[in-house]
Amino acid sequence: MLPAKADIIVRADYVLKMDRDFTLIKNGAIAVKDKKIAFVGADEEVAAKYTSDTIIGGSGKVAFPGLVNTHTHAAMVYFRGLADDLPLKVWLEEYIWPAEGKWLSPEFVGDAVELACVEMLKAGVTVYNDMYFFGDAIAGSTKKAGMRAVVGVGILDFPSKSAGTTEEYFANAENFIKAWAGDELIVPGIAPHAPYTCSPDNMLRAKKIAEQYNAPLHVHLSETRWEVEEIKSRYGKTPIAMLDSIGFLDKRVLAAHCVWPTDEEIEILAARKVGVAHCIESNLKLASGIAPVTKMLKAGVKVTFGTDSAASNNDLNILSEMSTAAKVHKAVSGDPTALDAKQVMLMATRWGAEALGLGNITGSLEEGKAADIVVADLKKPHLVPLYDIYSHIVYSMNPSDIETVLVNGRVVLDKGQLTSADESEILHKAQWWGQKISSAKTG
Amino acid sequence: MLPAKADIIVRADYVLKMDRDFTLIKNGAIAVKDKKIAFVGADEEVAAKYTSDTIIGGSGKVAFPGLVNTHTHAAMVYFRGLADDLPLKVWLEEYIWPAEGKWLSPEFVGDAVELACVEMLKAGVTVYNDMYFFGDAIAGSTKKAGMRAVVGVGILDFPSKSAGTTEEYFANAENFIKAWAGDELIVPGIAPHAPYTCSPDNMLRAKKIAEQYNAPLHVHLSETRWEVEEIKSRYGKTPIAMLDSIGFLDKRVLAAHCVWPTDEEIEILAARKVGVAHCIESNLKLASGIAPVTKMLKAGVKVTFGTDSAASNNDLNILSEMSTAAKVHKAVSGDPTALDAKQVMLMATRWGAEALGLGNITGSLEEGKAADIVVADLKKPHLVPLYDIYSHIVYSMNPSDIETVLVNGRVVLDKGQLTSADESEILHKAQWWGQKISSAKTG
Repeated sequence: MLPAKADIIVRADYVLKMDRDFTLIKNGAIAVKDKKIAFVGADEEVAAKYTSDTIIGGSGKVAFPGLVNTHTHAAMVYFRGLADDLPLKVWLEEYIWPAEGKWLSPEFVGDAVELACVEMLKAGVTVYNDMYFFGDAIAGSTKKAGMRAVVGVGILDFPSKSAGTTEEYFANAENFIKAWAGDELIVPGIAPHAPYTCSPDNMLRAKKIAEQYNAPLHVHLSETRWEVEEIKSRYGKTPIAMLDSIGFLDKRVLAAHCVWPTDEEIEILAARKVGVAHCIESNLKLASGIAPVTKMLKAGVKVTFGTDSAASNNDLNILSEMSTAAKVHKAVSGDPTALDAKQVMLMATRWGAEALGLGNITGSLEEGKAADIVVADLKKPHLVPLYDIYSHIVYSMNPSDIETVLVNGRVVLDKGQLTSADESEILHKAQWWGQKISSAKTG
Repeated sequence: MLPAKADIIVRADYVLKMDRDFTLIKNGAIAVKDKKIAFVGADEEVAAKYTSDTIIGGSGKVAFPGLVNTHTHAAMVYFRGLADDLPLKVWLEEYIWPAEGKWLSPEFVGDAVELACVEMLKAGVTVYNDMYFFGDAIAGSTKKAGMRAVVGVGILDFPSKSAGTTEEYFANAENFIKAWAGDELIVPGIAPHAPYTCSPDNMLRAKKIAEQYNAPLHVHLSETRWEVEEIKSRYGKTPIAMLDSIGFLDKRVLAAHCVWPTDEEIEILAARKVGVAHCIESNLKLASGIAPVTKMLKAGVKVTFGTDSAASNNDLNILSEMSTAAKVHKAVSGDPTALDAKQVMLMATRWGAEALGLGNITGSLEEGKAADIVVADLKKPHLVPLYDIYSHIVYSMNPSDIETVLVNGRVVLDKGQLTSADESEILHKAQWWGQKISSAKTG
C-alpha cells in the first residue's frame, strides 16, 4: 500500500506519548491529518504509512503533548507585578480589586487575553482553564490566537464591573454557554468564584446550569486558612465538606488550590473525582500555604497544575510550576522520591486534560486525539548531556526551549514565533494599557 | 570640556546600581573604560562625559550587576539528570560517587566547566564560587570563557580521583593557590569539603593555608539532619558550633547550605560574618530541608544564592533560585512580605560578591568596580506591562531574556551568543561525554 498523505509530520529524537504505558519512542514521528493525530510511531513506521509536504521538528528535538494550565485568570496578566510582596488581604483589597474596579471591560479583557495566550503558547501550554468575566472577550481572543480553553464565566454574590445582580451574573454565564457550545477550541463553562463569595444557593444554581448544558464547573476552594475559618463560622463545616454536604462536588468540578483540606476532605475529593489545580507558585508567593499534594495523590485525587493569575505568580509558565512543585513536595514530605519527573509530566498533560473533562480530546499523543503537540529544542547548554528526557523537561527546560506548538493540528507557534497574530502589536497594546494603569495609580 | 573616550557605553531604560541606596536610574547609561566602570548616570550625564564607538543596549532594556552564584560544583554539569528523584544517600553512594570515581580527570573537569560557564553566562551569572578537584582545569576553562570565579580546591579525609593522601590534597591546594594568585579573573581558594568528611585538624590546616595566602575558604555546612546528628555524636556539638569552637569560622568562610542551624548557631554565623550560600532548589530536590533564611536575615547573616551542582538542581540558573527562594520563604514564614524583590536582588548581586570577599571588585554598578554588567531584554510577552523592575527580574525573568554580558569590561555574551568560544563545539563535547557515561552506566 502506498503511504497516505498527512497534513503535517512531526519528527523528534524523543516522542513522549503520555499514554497509560508512558510510551517513549526514540526517533519517533507523529502524523497529523484533519486536525487529529493519525498515527504515532517510530520514524520508519510513520514513513511507511504517511508522507507529507510539511515536516516539523527533527534531530535534537523532543515532542510531547501540549501542557495544560488548569487554573488561571488570563486577563490579569495586565496586572503582572502591579503589587508584590504583600499580604493577600492588602494585595487584594488595596491593589487588585480597585484596579479591576477601575479597568475591567470587554476591551481590557480581550486585549489582555491576547497577551496571555502568546505567553502560554510560547511556554508550551496548549489549553488553559480560565475563570474571569466577559467570557466572549476571553473566548474570542483565545480562538483568535488558535489556542484551546475552558472558559468559566465568574459568579459572585456582589456586584462587579461585569454584573450588578445575581440574575445578571447567571444570565451572562448562560448566554455565554449557549453562544459557544460546540466550538472546536472553546469549552464554555461556569465559575462560581468560591464558597466565601458565593452562597450555597448560588453554587447549586451554577451546578444546575452546568448540568443542563453539560458544561464544566470551576471554583476556588480551601485556598487560605482564613477561608477555612470563615466557612466554618458561617456553616459549621470546612469548605470542601460543606460543598459536598450540599451535593455540589462531582467530576465536573475543577477545584483550584485545595491548600488546607483535612484528611477527610481529601477522601471526599477522591471519592467525588474532583480535579484539583495545584497552584504552588501563587500559594507560596501569597503565603497561603503548601497543599498536601503527596497525600492527595496517595488518596487518588487527580492533582494537576495551574499558574493562577500573573498578578500573583508572576508568569503563566507551567514548566516552572512543574519544577517548583516537584522540588517543594520532596522537601515538605521529606521524601526525595515524591513527585518524580514522570509523575509530574503526567499531571501537566494527560491528567490536566482529564481533570478538565477533555480526556478524550487532548492530553496525550494518541491516535484520534486532537493534534495538540509541543516540539522543544534539546541542543541547549542547559539541556546537555541527556540521560533522562522526563527529568530534562521537568527540571531543566525553560519556555525559550519551546520551538513549535500545534493546537488542533494548526501550527500556532513556529520556531518561537506566533503565527496567528503580530506579537509586537500585542506587546505594544500591553505597554499602552500598563501606562494607563500606572499613571492612574500614581496620579 | 570635551567628552572622554570610553571603551563601551551601555544604555538601558533602567539601570539598577545595587548600591547602598538602591539607586535606580531611568534612561541611564554606564561608561566602561579599562575594564572598569568609569561612570554611571542618566543618559545625558554620561553623554556629556563620555563617547564611545561601541554602544550596547538601548531602548527596552534593563542593566544590572552580574549575578553571583556562591556555591556550585561546575564540572558536575556533566552529571545533570543522571540520577533524579532519589534519596541523598542512594543518589550519592550509588550514582554520583561511582560516576565521579570512574570519570573524574583534568580533561573531564576542563570540558565540563566550559559547558557550565556558557550556561551561567547565558543566565546572567558573571562570577561563581566553585568547590571541586583539578583546580587548574576549572580555572583554565573559566578564564577561557572570560568568566570570573573563586575556585576552591577540595580537601577530603579519604582518597579520591584527585589525591591519594592528605599531603597530596594540601599540596594540590597550595600549588593551585600559588599558581593563580593575582589573576584578574580567578581567585584561588581552598575548600575543606564538610565537617563530616574533614577532621578538625584538616579544617584548621586549610584555614592556615587560606590565611597564609589571603585566600577564601569554602565549606558545606549543616546541610542535612543526618550531618547534624553525625557531628553531634562525634564531637558533642552541632556542626556550626563545633567549627566555631575550634576557631574555624570568620568572614573568610563561605558556608554552603546551613539548612539546620540552631538559633544559637545563627548568632554565631552573624557574629563571625560567615557568608551563607542558600541553595534552595538543591535542598528541596534532595529533601534536605528548608534553611531558616528569614531568621538568618533578621540576625544579620549575609545570605546569598547558590545553585549547588547541576546534578542536584538541575541547572545553574540563579534567576530561578531567586524566584524560588522569594516564594518558598514567604510560605514557610507565613509572611508574604518576606524576601521582597529588592532584598532578593541584593542577595544575588552585591551581597553575593561581598560574601566571596569580592565586594570591592564586583556586585554593584559603581564607579571603580569591574565592569561586570548584564543587559536583559524587556520586550517579551512575559515581561509586559512593567510596573516594578525589581519584581520583573526576580519573579518573571528567564535566562533567555539575558542578551549581553560583560565580565571585566569584555563582552563575553553578545545578543545571546558566546564570544569566547564556539558553543556548538562545547555542546558536541558534552554529548560525547554523556554518551560515554551513559553506555558505561548501562553496560
